[in-house]
Amino acid sequence: MSQPARELSHVDESGNARMVDVSAKDVTARTAVASGRMRTTAEVIGLISGGGLPKGDALATARIAGVMGAKKTPELIPLCHQIALTKVDVSFELEDTAVRIEGMARTSDRTGVEMEALTAVTVAGLALHDMIKAVDPAATLDDVRLETKDGGKTGTWSRDE
Amino acid sequence: MSQPARELSHVDESGNARMVDVSAKDVTARTAVASGRMRTTAEVIGLISGGGLPKGDALATARIAGVMGAKKTPELIPLCHQIALTKVDVSFELEDTAVRIEGMARTSDRTGVEMEALTAVTVAGLALHDMIKAVDPAATLDDVRLETKDGGKTGTWSRDE
Amino acid sequence: MSQPARELSHVDESGNARMVDVSAKDVTARTAVASGRMRTTAEVIGLISGGGLPKGDALATARIAGVMGAKKTPELIPLCHQIALTKVDVSFELEDTAVRIEGMARTSDRTGVEMEALTAVTVAGLALHDMIKAVDPAATLDDVRLETKDGGKTGTWSRDE
Amino acid sequence: MSQPARELSHVDESGNARMVDVSAKDVTARTAVASGRMRTTAEVIGLISGGGLPKGDALATARIAGVMGAKKTPELIPLCHQIALTKVDVSFELEDTAVRIEGMARTSDRTGVEMEALTAVTVAGLALHDMIKAVDPAATLDDVRLETKDGGKTGTWSRDE
Amino acid sequence: MSQPARELSHVDESGNARMVDVSAKDVTARTAVASGRMRTTAEVIGLISGGGLPKGDALATARIAGVMGAKKTPELIPLCHQIALTKVDVSFELEDTAVRIEGMARTSDRTGVEMEALTAVTVAGLALHDMIKAVDPAATLDDVRLETKDGGKTGTWSRDE
Amino acid sequence: MSQPARELSHVDESGNARMVDVSAKDVTARTAVASGRMRTTAEVIGLISGGGLPKGDALATARIAGVMGAKKTPELIPLCHQIALTKVDVSFELEDTAVRIEGMARTSDRTGVEMEALTAVTVAGLALHDMIKAVDPAATLDDVRLETKDGGKTGTWSRDE
Repeated sequence: MSQPARELSHVDESGNARMVDVSAKDVTARTAVASGRMRTTAEVIGLISGGGLPKGDALATARIAGVMGAKKTPELIPLCHQIALTKVDVSFELEDTAVRIEGMARTSDRTGVEMEALTAVTVAGLALHDMIKAVDPAATLDDVRLETKDGGKTGTWSRDE
Repeated sequence: MSQPARELSHVDESGNARMVDVSAKDVTARTAVASGRMRTTAEVIGLISGGGLPKGDALATARIAGVMGAKKTPELIPLCHQIALTKVDVSFELEDTAVRIEGMARTSDRTGVEMEALTAVTVAGLALHDMIKAVDPAATLDDVRLETKDGGKTGTWSRDE
Repeated sequence: MSQPARELSHVDESGNARMVDVSAKDVTARTAVASGRMRTTAEVIGLISGGGLPKGDALATARIAGVMGAKKTPELIPLCHQIALTKVDVSFELEDTAVRIEGMARTSDRTGVEMEALTAVTVAGLALHDMIKAVDPAATLDDVRLETKDGGKTGTWSRDE
Repeated sequence: MSQPARELSHVDESGNARMVDVSAKDVTARTAVASGRMRTTAEVIGLISGGGLPKGDALATARIAGVMGAKKTPELIPLCHQIALTKVDVSFELEDTAVRIEGMARTSDRTGVEMEALTAVTVAGLALHDMIKAVDPAATLDDVRLETKDGGKTGTWSRDE
Repeated sequence: MSQPARELSHVDESGNARMVDVSAKDVTARTAVASGRMRTTAEVIGLISGGGLPKGDALATARIAGVMGAKKTPELIPLCHQIALTKVDVSFELEDTAVRIEGMARTSDRTGVEMEALTAVTVAGLALHDMIKAVDPAATLDDVRLETKDGGKTGTWSRDE
Repeated sequence: MSQPARELSHVDESGNARMVDVSAKDVTARTAVASGRMRTTAEVIGLISGGGLPKGDALATARIAGVMGAKKTPELIPLCHQIALTKVDVSFELEDTAVRIEGMARTSDRTGVEMEALTAVTVAGLALHDMIKAVDPAATLDDVRLETKDGGKTGTWSRDE
């Protein structure tokens, strides 16, 4: 893996914000995975999982919010390029007092999709927050971070390395 | 403060997602404050703060992303009502190895603006993530949560209570 | 019920498109209900309903698309006013070879929400179309129409009258 | 033409909504044509056509709504991929008591544009509905369906086959 | 008319961008009119006006772009409040080698609609630019400015005063 | 450079608006530069430049508005194709009583990016207008025009030729 840059790529030498020129970068397959964790209460986890009842729409709503959010990344993040995603996936794992969120984004383009994966996770997190805030107004979204990315010149990066 | 509800307000008794009817609620002034913390490295904090140089656009970009993100809340969160905000504020505090983000939203409407404040924080956090990811791909957004809310029938809620 | 107008309200006397001035209209509670029917095959109905398995996300996805679509009405329909909805509801009824879609929109504003109810139905219909097109490319959306509206100067209108 | 799939492609084996991975599909020219019919009254058809007067903006407004709507397809339909259209066309044919709407979408991408053609038709239909609802609140959008598609692995599909 | 402020209202004393708090302002009727002029060639004016032929969609397209653009003002301008417009009007006057554009916006809200009127004019201008650029790539949009505004605490302002 | 067309490319022979078919055009690198000038007062220029104080967010806000506006071009201009920009740049030059705005857009696609460069300039201009209107309500945006474009079949065009 290449050495990360030692300057903020989105700010030029005068301190002005800029959108990086990716014209000369190769079109390659690129994938990124991000994750986060919504910390809440056991009561909320029970309500989300349905407590033995047929699955309700709570997680479906958050999943769709995350997928649609990933597609909105260049509208939300000022200097992000417009990337057409070939796949987005948002999944949830219910823990005792938390929901672990994982988001994956894939493209075939000139720049990576880390921000799309991170946006999928945070927007899914916001939708969960909205769903549970009447029961647990103190819920907290934690640990939103990149897990792995691959494709492009910098190659594969993984949190564990 | 009133007792929080014991069911997910956005899912009906059949488990179907729904947008709550707020027709009968009063139009009142409502404010919410949320916060979060981007954990990164001392090197990144130095680059953001400009290291003695004139202030660059890094935090301005994230601040504007947060304000514009707050206005997009009902587009991002499926069951949120469309609320016209009378004020949004996003501010940053630089710590040794973190950026603390605070977001405030205010309206005069039938329902609260917790989600708008939380969206301001998370979108500002995403924009920071984007700015620093070339230097610190392991940066993590933590502690995204509601701090206080007031206005409306449930009155004032504060994390410290 | 008042007599409908005898001219196209969105085109002025020169034939130019215009957005009607609603400044002088009263803010009142207004509700509209619309419906439509996606005609497909018994096989598709079986797949959507899960065939005895736990409920899948097919209808949840279409419901959320309809709710979010209703909020986008003024972005889709050039001369529609921007209305903040106090409630949106999308529901489905499975028939032997069709899905009946019903959409309801409510506001407290200066103009009616017929278009919001119709948009909820058509966008939910499009999302269903997308979901079933690999199995039934010939599926057809039919009978998209207003069922009832009430509130405002023209009072209550119902298809059955 | 290949056999259509026997499962809902947008729902995985656990019933969870997903965006299909199209990374491995070929970039090819793809076209789709859809149609629909707005059933209304002879009076409305007279008003739209201008009754001998110079053409007004009624159909132009609906045509532009349809073209812009097609470009919004991935924002409206949760699991649709973001596709850059190389052409969109919306046309109308006035019948005695109906307006026939036809929408065409074309791209050079990894997945088809059926949903873009269908969205062009339905959004044009909604804009027509908006234009005529003061005169004919009972107007109905019918027969929204795919006519033909070609390009991609499944080849050409036509309603008449 | 009151004296204009002597500082940039959207930047606080630390130089940070901010959205002004309008919570305490009165809800009143507010109107603004702006104008601009697209300078082009006599040939283009001939093509737009149809040269004796039935009116084409050129100006209708630009008019609708301007109306829809006005509704997008808070998405385009970072610190603008979200205002529901009760009327938008865009009109054109053909001169020998120019198109004069006028945009009007009206609301009943806590803050003025100057930016909405200016956005209507500039987006209509951009749509005209797009329409004529193949014939006159040198076309220039000039004189985009506020003409009048009224309503709110500052009362009526007019360019002629 | 090729001769410009002698008809409006976005209107067909019946006068109907249309989106041009670019399917058969080559994917090539394309760049466009546009400019404009906001005429205001010496006082405003002093406030924007900070008068010896550290740089405030005024120009940063307008720059980001311009970059984000460029990405929204196909949403604003009805018949524009959806183009993924590989770079957008917005810069300002402070003159005695004016701000000169320059916008650059680049892509690798089937059609040019003149409209994206012009949209960057006009949206940056609108954001400046918003920032200064309390001090100078008479500010005027002038001279919005294409400076150069290159790439594609028509080759290089420059205002000076």
